Amino acid sequence: MTYCLGIMSYQGLVLASDSRSNSGFDQVSVCRKMHTFVLPGERVFVLVSSGSLSVTQSVITQLRIDFERGDGLAKAESMYRAARVVGDTIRRVADIDRAALERDKIPFNVNIILGGQIKGEQSNLYLIYPQGNPLRATKDSPYLQIGEVKYGRPILDRGLDFNNTTLDQAAKYAVLSLDSTMRSNVTVGPPIDLLLYYEDELIIRQHRRLKENDPDLLEIHAGWETSLRKIVSDMPSIRFGTDITGE
Amino acid sequence: MTYCLGIMSYQGLVLASDSRSNSGFDQVSVCRKMHTFVLPGERVFVLVSSGSLSVTQSVITQLRIDFERGDGLAKAESMYRAARVVGDTIRRVADIDRAALERDKIPFNVNIILGGQIKGEQSNLYLIYPQGNPLRATKDSPYLQIGEVKYGRPILDRGLDFNNTTLDQAAKYAVLSLDSTMRSNVTVGPPIDLLLYYEDELIIRQHRRLKENDPDLLEIHAGWETSLRKIVSDMPSIRFGTDITGE
Repeated sequence: MTYCLGIMSYQGLVLASDSRSNSGFDQVSVCRKMHTFVLPGERVFVLVSSGSLSVTQSVITQLRIDFERGDGLAKAESMYRAARVVGDTIRRVADIDRAALERDKIPFNVNIILGGQIKGEQSNLYLIYPQGNPLRATKDSPYLQIGEVKYGRPILDRGLDFNNTTLDQAAKYAVLSLDSTMRSNVTVGPPIDLLLYYEDELIIRQHRRLKENDPDLLEIHAGWETSLRKIVSDMPSIRFGTDITGE
Repeated sequence: MTYCLGIMSYQGLVLASDSRSNSGFDQVSVCRKMHTFVLPGERVFVLVSSGSLSVTQSVITQLRIDFERGDGLAKAESMYRAARVVGDTIRRVADIDRAALERDKIPFNVNIILGGQIKGEQSNLYLIYPQGNPLRATKDSPYLQIGEVKYGRPILDRGLDFNNTTLDQAAKYAVLSLDSTMRSNVTVGPPIDLLLYYEDELIIRQHRRLKENDPDLLEIHAGWETSLRKIVSDMPSIRFGTDITGE
C-alpha cells in the first residue's frame, strides 16, 4: 500500500509521500513515490503516486521522456492541461498493459496527485484517476489523498483551512497525517518525502526526506503523542447517568 | 455503515457505538446498536454490533429470548463461553438466512463486540465474527473495533495503555475516536451510546447517550479541534533543504 497527499493553501502547496512498496507480505522494499519536473522560472510539477509500481514507473518514465524532449508537461499551457497530460499518459500505459493484467485478474491501478504551477497561473492541485480523468482540489476541501487514506484523514479535516493554514503549518499536518498512518498500518512506511512549494517561486527550494530514525520525525512523533495524551487528560470528564432503557 | 468499539483497561471496560443505519444513501435512520444483558450482582454483558440490521436484530432477538428463559448468556459459565453463545447464535441465524441472502449476492454480515463480566472472573472483551468465531482483546492491544474502523484508530493507538488508562480517560478516547469518524465519514452518525463498566460492579451504572447537539459533545468536539491546532502551531517548524535528487 501507499499513502500520499497534497495540500493547497493560500501560500502554495505541500506534497508528501511514504516510501513503502510491497508485493504481498514478503517483498517489501523502499521506493520513492515523489517525482519532480521543473523548468526553473517557468514551470514546476510535483507528482506523487500510488498503485502498481510497474504501472506507475511506466507512466513516470513516459512523462519524463516527453518532458525531456520539450513535449508533454514541458509544454502544457495550464495546470488543467498538465493534469490532462498525466491522464493521457496513464491511458497510453493502459493501452499497453491493461488487457494483459486483467486477463490474470490484476487490476490496472495507478492514482497520481499532481501539484505545481505554470508561470502566469496560480498553483494548483489535481488527482488523476486510473481512468485518466482529473479532479481538482478546492478551497473548501484543500487536500487530496491517495492510497491508504483513512487513518490520516481526521487530522487534516480538523486542522486545514485554505485561507489560514500557512505552508509551515501544512507541512506539519502532512507529517502528522503520514505518521498517524504509519503508526496504524504496516503497509505504509518511511522515509517520508516532503516538499513545500511557495507560490510563484517556480523552482523547488524546500524538500526534505525524513528517514525512520530522523531526529525531527522522532521528536514530532513523541511530542504529538505526549501532547494528545495531555489534552485528553485535561478534558473535562464525561458525566454519566444510568439512562439505558430496557429492551 | 457503523462504528463501534470496546476498550479494556485495568479498571474495567468502555463500550461505545454510533447510531446511524443506512441502506444505500436514501434510507438513513437512527438505530441503537448497544444492547445490555444483566443479572445484577451476577453477570453483565454489553453488546455492540455492526452489519446488516436485519441479521443483527435476529441475533439480538434470539439472545434475548434465550436469556429471558435462563438460557444462553444467562447461564454461560465464563466470558469465553458467553462469546461462544453469541457465535453460536450468529450461526443459527446464518442457518436460517444466509443461503437466501447469498442467492441475491447480499453478504451475510454481522460483527459483534461483547464486553462484560461474570462473577468470579475478570471482565473481558471479545469480537465475534460473522462466521461465529471469537477473538479476545489483549493487554497489548486493549481495544476492538467493528465497522468503519480506520478513521478512529490513530487516536486509540496513540492514547490507550491497559495498565495506565483510567476508565474516565478511556471514555474520552472512545468519544474522540467516534467523533473523528463522524467528522470524516457521513455513514457514521450520532447519537453516541457510551457505557462504562467498572470491574466487579456487576451492574450497569454509567451510561450516556450523546445526541448530535449535546453540549458536552459539542464542547469535546470544539475543544479538541482548538487544542490540536494549538499543538501543531506550537510544534517546531520542519527544516528543509533542497536535497531532492535528479531522476
